[in-house]
Formats: sequence, structure tokens, C-alpha cells
Amino acid sequence: MPPETSSPAPAVVRADGRTPQQLRPISITRGWSSQAEGSALIEFGNTRVLCTASFTAGVPRWLKGEGRGWVTAEYAMLPRATNTRSDRESVKGKIGGRTHEISRLIGRSLRSIIDTKALGENTIVLDCDVLQADGGTRTAAITGAYVALVDSIRWAKANKIIDHRAKVLTDSVAAVSVGIIDGIPMLDLPYIEDVRAETDMNVVVTGSGTFVEVQGTAEGAPFDRDELNRLLDLAVSGTAELAQIQRETLGNDD
Amino acid sequence: MPPETSSPAPAVVRADGRTPQQLRPISITRGWSSQAEGSALIEFGNTRVLCTASFTAGVPRWLKGEGRGWVTAEYAMLPRATNTRSDRESVKGKIGGRTHEISRLIGRSLRSIIDTKALGENTIVLDCDVLQADGGTRTAAITGAYVALVDSIRWAKANKIIDHRAKVLTDSVAAVSVGIIDGIPMLDLPYIEDVRAETDMNVVVTGSGTFVEVQGTAEGAPFDRDELNRLLDLAVSGTAELAQIQRETLGNDD
Amino acid sequence: MPPETSSPAPAVVRADGRTPQQLRPISITRGWSSQAEGSALIEFGNTRVLCTASFTAGVPRWLKGEGRGWVTAEYAMLPRATNTRSDRESVKGKIGGRTHEISRLIGRSLRSIIDTKALGENTIVLDCDVLQADGGTRTAAITGAYVALVDSIRWAKANKIIDHRAKVLTDSVAAVSVGIIDGIPMLDLPYIEDVRAETDMNVVVTGSGTFVEVQGTAEGAPFDRDELNRLLDLAVSGTAELAQIQRETLGNDD
Amino acid sequence: MPPETSSPAPAVVRADGRTPQQLRPISITRGWSSQAEGSALIEFGNTRVLCTASFTAGVPRWLKGEGRGWVTAEYAMLPRATNTRSDRESVKGKIGGRTHEISRLIGRSLRSIIDTKALGENTIVLDCDVLQADGGTRTAAITGAYVALVDSIRWAKANKIIDHRAKVLTDSVAAVSVGIIDGIPMLDLPYIEDVRAETDMNVVVTGSGTFVEVQGTAEGAPFDRDELNRLLDLAVSGTAELAQIQRETLGNDD
Amino acid sequence: MPPETSSPAPAVVRADGRTPQQLRPISITRGWSSQAEGSALIEFGNTRVLCTASFTAGVPRWLKGEGRGWVTAEYAMLPRATNTRSDRESVKGKIGGRTHEISRLIGRSLRSIIDTKALGENTIVLDCDVLQADGGTRTAAITGAYVALVDSIRWAKANKIIDHRAKVLTDSVAAVSVGIIDGIPMLDLPYIEDVRAETDMNVVVTGSGTFVEVQGTAEGAPFDRDELNRLLDLAVSGTAELAQIQRETLGNDD
Amino acid sequence: MPPETSSPAPAVVRADGRTPQQLRPISITRGWSSQAEGSALIEFGNTRVLCTASFTAGVPRWLKGEGRGWVTAEYAMLPRATNTRSDRESVKGKIGGRTHEISRLIGRSLRSIIDTKALGENTIVLDCDVLQADGGTRTAAITGAYVALVDSIRWAKANKIIDHRAKVLTDSVAAVSVGIIDGIPMLDLPYIEDVRAETDMNVVVTGSGTFVEVQGTAEGAPFDRDELNRLLDLAVSGTAELAQIQRETLGNDD
Repeated sequence: MPPETSSPAPAVVRADGRTPQQLRPISITRGWSSQAEGSALIEFGNTRVLCTASFTAGVPRWLKGEGRGWVTAEYAMLPRATNTRSDRESVKGKIGGRTHEISRLIGRSLRSIIDTKALGENTIVLDCDVLQADGGTRTAAITGAYVALVDSIRWAKANKIIDHRAKVLTDSVAAVSVGIIDGIPMLDLPYIEDVRAETDMNVVVTGSGTFVEVQGTAEGAPFDRDELNRLLDLAVSGTAELAQIQRETLGNDD
Repeated sequence: MPPETSSPAPAVVRADGRTPQQLRPISITRGWSSQAEGSALIEFGNTRVLCTASFTAGVPRWLKGEGRGWVTAEYAMLPRATNTRSDRESVKGKIGGRTHEISRLIGRSLRSIIDTKALGENTIVLDCDVLQADGGTRTAAITGAYVALVDSIRWAKANKIIDHRAKVLTDSVAAVSVGIIDGIPMLDLPYIEDVRAETDMNVVVTGSGTFVEVQGTAEGAPFDRDELNRLLDLAVSGTAELAQIQRETLGNDD
Repeated sequence: MPPETSSPAPAVVRADGRTPQQLRPISITRGWSSQAEGSALIEFGNTRVLCTASFTAGVPRWLKGEGRGWVTAEYAMLPRATNTRSDRESVKGKIGGRTHEISRLIGRSLRSIIDTKALGENTIVLDCDVLQADGGTRTAAITGAYVALVDSIRWAKANKIIDHRAKVLTDSVAAVSVGIIDGIPMLDLPYIEDVRAETDMNVVVTGSGTFVEVQGTAEGAPFDRDELNRLLDLAVSGTAELAQIQRETLGNDD
Repeated sequence: MPPETSSPAPAVVRADGRTPQQLRPISITRGWSSQAEGSALIEFGNTRVLCTASFTAGVPRWLKGEGRGWVTAEYAMLPRATNTRSDRESVKGKIGGRTHEISRLIGRSLRSIIDTKALGENTIVLDCDVLQADGGTRTAAITGAYVALVDSIRWAKANKIIDHRAKVLTDSVAAVSVGIIDGIPMLDLPYIEDVRAETDMNVVVTGSGTFVEVQGTAEGAPFDRDELNRLLDLAVSGTAELAQIQRETLGNDD
Repeated sequence: MPPETSSPAPAVVRADGRTPQQLRPISITRGWSSQAEGSALIEFGNTRVLCTASFTAGVPRWLKGEGRGWVTAEYAMLPRATNTRSDRESVKGKIGGRTHEISRLIGRSLRSIIDTKALGENTIVLDCDVLQADGGTRTAAITGAYVALVDSIRWAKANKIIDHRAKVLTDSVAAVSVGIIDGIPMLDLPYIEDVRAETDMNVVVTGSGTFVEVQGTAEGAPFDRDELNRLLDLAVSGTAELAQIQRETLGNDD
Repeated sequence: MPPETSSPAPAVVRADGRTPQQLRPISITRGWSSQAEGSALIEFGNTRVLCTASFTAGVPRWLKGEGRGWVTAEYAMLPRATNTRSDRESVKGKIGGRTHEISRLIGRSLRSIIDTKALGENTIVLDCDVLQADGGTRTAAITGAYVALVDSIRWAKANKIIDHRAKVLTDSVAAVSVGIIDGIPMLDLPYIEDVRAETDMNVVVTGSGTFVEVQGTAEGAPFDRDELNRLLDLAVSGTAELAQIQRETLGNDD
């Protein structure tokens, strides 16, 4: 009659009431900006990122004449996006390593689902500005930038800058953070969980479920192969859910 | 013999349907940011500025020990706030003259209605980030920063950092742009009017109707004393209306 | 026996012996530099600014092919122009907000009296370097830069770069500071008055008496309409006197 | 008649004669620099990185009084380490994103095997300067920096700055790159393979076989879970070999 | 009737009428600036340098507590000091190599005749700003900076910051340029000679005739020992003349 | 009874066992880098400098169309080349005066023995990176850069970029430091002697014994003409020895 064996481990409940496998409430406001060719205000819980896509004819000098387009990204955070104010990078006169690293990650992630030949000699710059930060800003940025990117391509087609039959997008892309906290793998970490995580991983996954980036870091003790596998499982299911939200947001008007 | 019907000046109607004496639709969303001690998302038509107030104990080194507080401001624009994308100042590694000039204007404007003795040795930094720009960004920033400032002082009183009876604020402050277009003085110029204005003036006025800043610039032909006077009249009435909106937004909970 | 006429207010005498309506001794040494196309060492009392005008064929890239010229200005201060030494902006690696703001003001002021079509595709750069500072450096810079500008245009005509009949200058321009000290409006403030002024205003006026810039700032208490008007009266009379000195300095050799 | 033996896949031979599972020739010259507390010139084939460890008493201001030490790293490349010359970052006046990113990776990797409490309030700075680059510079840097780090700790113990019984190191650490080229997972990519890789992964592994960092990037097509697993297998065996070389280089003199 | 004595080599006359052994007209206006503790406007022909000495109590952090003072120098050129305008170093955001090199030379030259123990823990900063450049700016700067330096020390003694009997100065110092043009060694080169010189040398000499700096550079063909000796002879006689002018300028009021 | 022969001055022996007239052990490893067109790792005792020559077709914009080539140099030091670590100039965001000064010296020295007409419109950039510093780094850099330069020209001839009969080199060039320590002139100073030297001189001499640069600085007391002469004698004999080593290193394969 040992109840311990018959009753499963008590369900883990996170500070915000989620189960370990649950995303935070996700909201994508498409077209938040009236100035950009594509834009989205994306929210992962309290994390809010404004993503704009600027579509311009022409490519950087080093790419001229190759018949291919260019997609790049810049990530930044407002000084009071976080709980305490940070100095502006424009005031400091230089961009920090973290900012550089994330900008590069976003750019690579979006280029991975673009056919630059089909884009033609055009450039899309994705600006991801964090208005409010509560963990997972880079993954929200990638997920939201995809929506802005799609809209900017639709704009270019509507304005006959790109042929409307061109298959510029080869897939969709979304990203999520996962981490191990007190030994339990958890999905989509807010700031308070992020700082406690022993291992922290950001995973960028296409709509068809293949990997674009896997970045796992042992914050405390190194992690083993089994932990890695459980985190990847969680990330794949979380990004599948995000891909579904992206599809619903964007509709079928291609 | 009704004089009205015989020779009225035909009513001037602006591109957006306003009369020359009318403000654009004004919206202030108080507490837009959950991270800052005070915040407001302010909209003057399509111009949207996120204003946050960061309240911290202590003052800069050069002010220590004088028993007075410090209020300062930083203004910036997202790269795609405007119709075409601008390079980030953080990427360029330096802040442009226009940014500097506006940051200084906002700082001076808010310091003019603060009793720094009553504030005590505390610092309030106002960040005004333009999310979308359509003319009048500096005047929207000043008007919104005032709301964020008031909330940060209420926060400091609620948290007993400042005595709840301290009279930190000596008045309210708001700002508006005025200009002469085709010879007609107009209030609160959107971008398309701003570029056409012969004379452009930004006026910062207290709630009690006195001037904090008067900055008039002849963009085309120099202006005369009479034009100056008509612009000032318009600015005084516009800022009175803004002061009323600020009062309604902030309520009486002091 | 009306007392008003028999007992006038006692005359106010300033620290340097001037009446409130008096300029400091003004000196303009035309052609101080033998290298530049136009130059003037201007002195407003102890304030000394070296103004040079560099005339070059061609315009910046963004203006090419429009048949118009370009006039711009750079203001700077020697590190020991002031009573205590300041770090050089070249050593700090960035230009301060104040420097930027004043450079922009000087450029706008001089462009306001130039017909850029008549100038043709030529550029004039005005460098205003403060060798000694005692208040009013920006107003001295504008007043002196006008003299250097005129001489550089005469040089261009003499060298047949511009047609000698071209009307490049539409007017003259001069500037002066005014302020309220102990309730009394005063003209052309030296440093010791400037720091005490409740309201400080820089006014840029053409030779024909119209306004190019009006920049009034409440340093202490906000100012009212009446004070504004009295300051403007003072500025208009001061700049009229400066315009007369400019005319005498430049002679009639156009 | 065993079919397995009769038709093996034809052995893949790489341009430099290696099998896919083979490291390049590895050489570690310990103590190459006579100035630093620890140093190693490490070679992965033609890639040559000079790693120095600078041990100093004290920690950065933000860590003072916590009884813990600090380990950080800076990575850089000589301008002509590569086949064509790059501009120096010191001349450009700013550090590129790639440099920042790699410096941060090296620092995190080495901190993962340090007990900062046992290190005491001391700082170790690891400088990894690439003298010649042929792919895998960041992994060579981590592997060589570990050797320099160990020697700097031995130096500190020999000089009685750290107690000789303190267990500062909790493990060893090494890194290697892996990638998929023409569908085949390969270990330790030189430059010509690196540019052709469809997927590129840098893996940092401890001496006991657990992961510190896993950074996989799809350069071309996204990769699937099976490919990820095969790359991880290869990386784990490669870093085990590197750990063995580190042990032989460092000997048992702890 | 020996022909050798009756027909001397025809005297060489330089473009400005000088003999090869002659200095340009030298002028030193002591106390040109009313703000600095010491100042001199020095002219070597058309070269004009404003030298100011800023005397402040205290020394840089790295020198504290050693009972010694510090003397340093900064050299700069106004943008239109030269025949064509140069960009400002403050606008470019960095100081050029030439500026750095000359600042360091001036600093070393003046430190060579200062007894830093006698100066006490005080700092003297020498700012040498070239207002007009026509060759020899660094030598004029050193020669003029000496005058400013002496006056700042006299000021410190008069203000009892330094004991009036302290022997802070161990000697005087002056500098001159020499060069070989068309095979003839010449003293104090203006710009048009400087660009033609095959060898160019700047020599810094004390009042007692010993060397502080000898910087000879072959601009065209390398030079031999005999040429070096003739240049040094010329420099020694030129600096002796400058030392005499310095003495006359400064008088005996120590 | 000739006293001269019976009592010679006791032989001076330096800390490292050398006589005052002796160079440190010199080693030049030609072709140390497999990436550059020419390279040499040069050692003057413990001073180690890696010199690479990057040969590229074309010249900077300002030299285009003149039929002449360009040779320039950049000098830098690894952060831990010295006994205590220095901050990287790339991290500080600016290049120090010393670095600038030495880069310019190396560039001038190598240009002095190049016929830029014979070089044609090609550019050679010499990078001299100090891997380990123990005095005399600039003189080792010049001496080693010459070897890299020669090899890059041979490479250009072998690759038919320059005609194989072109006489690009007009001479060889080498450099050495000399100084007076305790009154005794000494050759090739290591760091511990350098800091003690009363006078410090760097001399750049061609293979045929003429001077390219003479840079003498009084670190302590100024020096007289006799000391200058003795230092020059020593430098000429030291550089003759270095020129012989360069010849042996380079062989006769031109």
C-alpha cells in the first residue's frame, strides 16, 4: 500500500503558474509601426520587442552584381527595458559584445530561411528593439522578426519590386529558450528563472522542425548528453507552437 | 446685412482635416512600462514616444553633498521610426548634434519645474525614445516625460524615499511646435507641414502659462515681430490644452 | 509737481561700468589669418573668437547636381579659453552637446542670409574657434563669421569663381545675448552676468531687423510675455549696432 | 561471405590526408612567453594561437569583498594572420562582433572549470592572439588557454599567492570544431573545409566528458536531430584526445 | 692677389630674403591670454602658436604621494591654420599620429628643464594651439611654451603655491628646425622650404647649449655624418639666438 | 713606460655579460608566417617581433595615377608582451601616441630605401607585432621588416607582378638603440638598461652607412656634442653588423 510508488511525481508549478513544458502568453501585433515595410510588436510574457523590416533596393557594395539579396539584423535594448537602467550604447560610443552577438544570431537565423537569389538585389534590415525585457529577448526577436520579414516581402511583391511568384521564403523560423532549473528542464524562461538556470540553451528551429542554431551554455556545472537531449525535445515542441502562432498571425494572403 | 456672410476668410483646412488652431489627437498611456518607476507612451497623432523615468538614490559626483537632486534626459530615435531607416547612433559610435540638442532641451525643461532641494540627493533620468516619428517628437517627449516624472516622484513618496509632504514639483510643463505655412500660423505640425514651414518654433510652457523655452528658427525667410507674436499666442493656447490632458491623465492622487 | 518726472529710477551701473542697454567694446580685425579666404578676429569685451571662412569648389555628395552651394560652420573652444582648463574634445574622442548645438546654430544663421543658388556649387566652411571666453561666444562667433563669409565671397568673385554680379548675400546677420538679472533686462552678458541671469536669450537678427533665431531659456524661474518682449527690444537695438560695425568694417568694396 | 566486409563504404580521404574522425597535428609549446605567468603556443595544423595568462592580485571593483576570483579572456587576430590582410581593430577604433563573441566564449569556457572561491580575490586574464589562422582558431584558443591557465595557477601557488592545497581547477577543458561537408560529419575543420561546411559546430567539453558549450549553426540548409547527434559524437571523441594531449603537456607537477 | 679670397661663393638668398643662417622674424607676446596662469603668442614668421600654461594643484593619480610635480603638453592645429582646411580631430573622433608625436615631444622637452621635486605636487599643462601654420610649428610651440611655463611658475610663487626660493627651472629651452635644401644647410624652414628639404631636423637645445632632443629624418636620400654635423651647428646657433629672445621677453623679475 | 698601455680602464661587463659595444644575440626566422607574401620573426635577445609584408596591387586613392607605389607600416604590441599586462588598444578604442609614433618611424625608414617608381602602383603594408618585449622593439621591427619587405618584392617578381629586372630596393636598412648608462655609451639596450639610460637614441642606418633617422632624447640630463658623437659611432658599427646578418639571411637569390 505504498502511495509513493502509485502516485506520480507531484506536478511542478512555476512562479507564474506554468508547467515546465508551457510557453508564456505569446502576442504578436502585426503592423504596429506605420513607417516600416513590415513590423511586429511581439510579446513573450512581459518581454516586448518591436521588430521592423526595412526593405530597400540594392545591396551592400561587396555583394553587387551577384544577383543576390541581403538580410541583416540589429538588436538593441532601450536603457530602461530592464529593472535597472543601463547606459545607452550610443552614449558609451560602442556596442557591447552581447549586443553584437545577438544581432549576428538574428541575422543568421533569418538568412537561413531566405532564398537570396529569389530576393534579387534587395536588402532587408531587421531592427529588433527591446522595449521591455524579461528574459528570452533574443528568441522573441527572432520569432517577431520573421513576421516583419514576411510582411516586407509581401510589400515588395505588392509594389512589384519582387515578382509575385518568387519563392523568397524557404521555410518559417522561430526560437525559444530552454534551461535546467533545480534539475528540471523548462521552456521559455523569464528573467528570474534565467538567472537560476544551471544550463541555458537558445534554439532556433524552422517551421519544418530542423535546427538553424543550437546554443547551449553551462552556466553552472557542465551538462551531459541526456540533459542536452531533454532540452532539445522541449525546444522543438515550443518552437512548433510558435510556428503555429506565426502562421495564424500571417494568414494565407501570400 | 450680416457681416459674417459677406466676407469671411475661407476656413483653412489642413491635410489631416484640422483647423490651424487644433492639436492632433493626443493620447497618453500612463505606466506603459512595468519596469520603470514612471512611464508614459505619448502620441501626438502618429508620433509615438516612450518616456520612462528612472529614479535612483544618489547624485552625480559633482553634485554630492549639496543636498540637491538631479534631473536629466536622453532622447533617441529608433532607426526605423522614420519613413526611411537611419543608421543607429550606437553603430556609428557617436551621437549626432540633433540628438544632443534635444536631450539637453528636455532636461532643461523638466528641471525648470522641479525644486531640487525638495527632491533631495536623488537622481531622475528621463529616457524619451521615439518609436514612431511624424513631427513634433521633442514636444511630445517633453509633454510625456512630465507624466513619467510625476509618477516616479509619487513612487518615491510611496516608497518613503522622499517625504510625502515634499513639494518637489513647482508646476507642470508641456511643449508644442508652431509654424508658419503659406503665411498662416499653425499649431502642432506633423512632418509634412514641418518641412514646408517658413518659420518653425518650439515652445515650452508651464501649467501656469509662463515660458520655459522659446526656440524660433527661420527656415526660409527671417520672420518679423508680428509673426513671432502670433506664433506665441498659438503655442500658449496649445500647451494649455496639453496641460489639461496631463492633469486628467495624472488624476488627483498626490 | 508730479513726482514721476522729478525722481527717475537711479541709473543701473553694471560691474564693468556699462548701462543695461550698452554693448561691450566690440573689435573686429578683418583678415587676421593670411591662410583663409576670409577671416576675422572678433572681440566682445574679453571674448575673442577667430572666425575663418574656407571657400572650396564643389558641394557635399548629397547636394551634387542641384546647382546650389553649401554653407556650414564648426564652433570649438581652446582648452584654456576659460578660467579653468577643459579637456580637449579631440582627446575625449567625442564632441559635446553644447559644441554641436552652437555649430548648428551658427550654420543656420549664416545660411539664412545666403542665396545658395547664387553661390553656385561651392562650399563655405566657417570655423569659429574661441581663443578666450567671457560670455557671448556664440553671438560673437555669428557676428564675426559674417565678416569672414563676406570676405570669402569677395575672394571668390575676385578669383572669378563666382560671377562678380551674383547676389550671394541677401542681407547681413549679427547676434547678441540678452538676459534678465535681478529683474533688469541687460544687453550682451559677460560670464559673471550670464551665470546670474534668470532668463538668458540669444537672438540672431538680420541687418534689416528681422529675426533668424530666437532662443530664450528660463535658467531660474519661467519668464512671462512682458519680459520676453523687453528682451527682444534690447536684442534688436544691440544687433542694429553690431550691423553698423560690420558695415564699417567691411566697407563698400563689393 | 559476410556482406559487411565485402562492401565497405569507400574510405573518405580529406584534402590533407586525414580521415573524417582525425584531428590535425596538434602541438602545444608550453611557456613560449617568458613574460607571462603562464603561456602556450598552440597549433592545430597551420592555426597558431599564442595564449598567455596574466595573474594579478585583486578583482574588478564590482566583485570586491566577495572572496571570489575572476577569470576573463580576450581574443584577437593579427592583421595578417589570414590569407588577405584585415584592418586592425585598434585602427578602426572598435572591436568587431566576431571578436567580442569569441572572447566571451573563451572566458565562459574557462570559468566553467574554475572554483572562483578557491582562486580567492585574484584575477586571471587570458589573452589569445591568433598569429596564423587556418580554421578552428577559437577552439585552439580554448584548448591552449587552459594550459596557460594551469601554469599561471601553479605559478601563484609556487609564489604562495594561493595556498598550494587549494583546488582551483575542478576539471580540464578543451574544444574542437566539427562540421558536415558533402553529407559527411568531419572533425577539426581547416579553413577550406570550414567555408564549405553545411553545418558548423563548436563544442567545448570538459576532461570528464560533459558539455560546457554547444554552438551549432546551419550555414546552408538547417540540420536534423540525427546530424546533430553524429556531430556531437565526433566532438566528444576529438576533445577526449585533446584532453589527453593537455595532460601530457602539463605533466603531474601539481 | 689670391683669387680664392677675392671671389667668395655667391651669397645664397632665400625666397624671403634671409641668408641660410638666419631665423625668421621672431615675436613673443607674453600674457596674450588673460585666463591662463601663463601664456604667450609666439610667431616664427607667419607661424603663430598660442601657448598657455595651466597650473593646478595636485598630480595625476599614478604620481600621488611621491612629492613630485608633473608637466605635460598638448599640441593641436586649428582646421584652417594651413593653406587648405583639414578636418577637426574632435570631429574625426581621434587624434592623428603627428599630433600625438608632437605633443609628446613638447612635453619631454619642457620636463627636461624642470626640477619636479621643486615643483612639488602640482601639475602644469601646456596647450600649444597653432593658429596659423607656415613650417616649424613644433619648434615655435616649444619655444613659446617655455615662456608660458616660466610665467605660470612665477604666478604660483606670487600666489605662494610654490615657495618663492624654489629652483623649479634648471635651465631654459628652445627649439628650431634645420634642413638641407639643394645641398645647403638652412635654419628655420618655412613651409615651402620644408617640403623641399632632403633632410629635415628638429633640434631642442637648452639655454646652456646642451641637447634635449635631436630628431633628424631623411626625407629624400639618406644623409651622411658631415651633413648631420653642419645641421647641428646651425641648430645650436639658432637656438642660442632664441634663448636670448626668451631672456629679453621674460626679464629679470624672478 | 707608457702609462696608456699599462693601465687600461677595467672592462665594463653588462648584466647579460656583453661588452658595451656588443649586440644581443640576433635571430631572424625568415618565412615564419605561411600566409604573408614576406615575413620574419626577428629576435634581439628576448625581444621578439613578428614582421609580415602584405603585397597588394593598387595604391591608396590619393596616390592613384602617379605611377608610384606605397609602403606603410603598423606597429603594435600584444597586451602581455611586457612584464605587466597592458590594455589592448582595440579595447580602449584608440591608438596611443607611442604606437602611432613608432608606426610612422618604421614606415619612413622602409620608404627611404624603396624606389616607389620601380615598385609601380602596388602597396606593401608591413605589420610589426611585438610578441615579447625587452627593449629595442622599434629597432628590431625595422630590421625585421626589411627582411619581410625583400621577400614580398621577390614574391611579386616571381609572380610577375613586378618586372624581375626592376630595382625596387635602393639599399638595405637596419636600426639599433644606443644609450648612455652611468656615463658609458652602450649598444642595443634591453629593458633594464633602457630605463636607466640618461640619454636614449634610436638610429636607422642604410647598408651603405648613411643615416635615415637619428632620434636622440635626453631622458635625464641633456647631452653634449661629444656624447652624441660617441653614440652615433656605436650605432653605425651596430647597424653594420645587423646589415651583415640581413644579407646572410636573405642570400643571393634576387
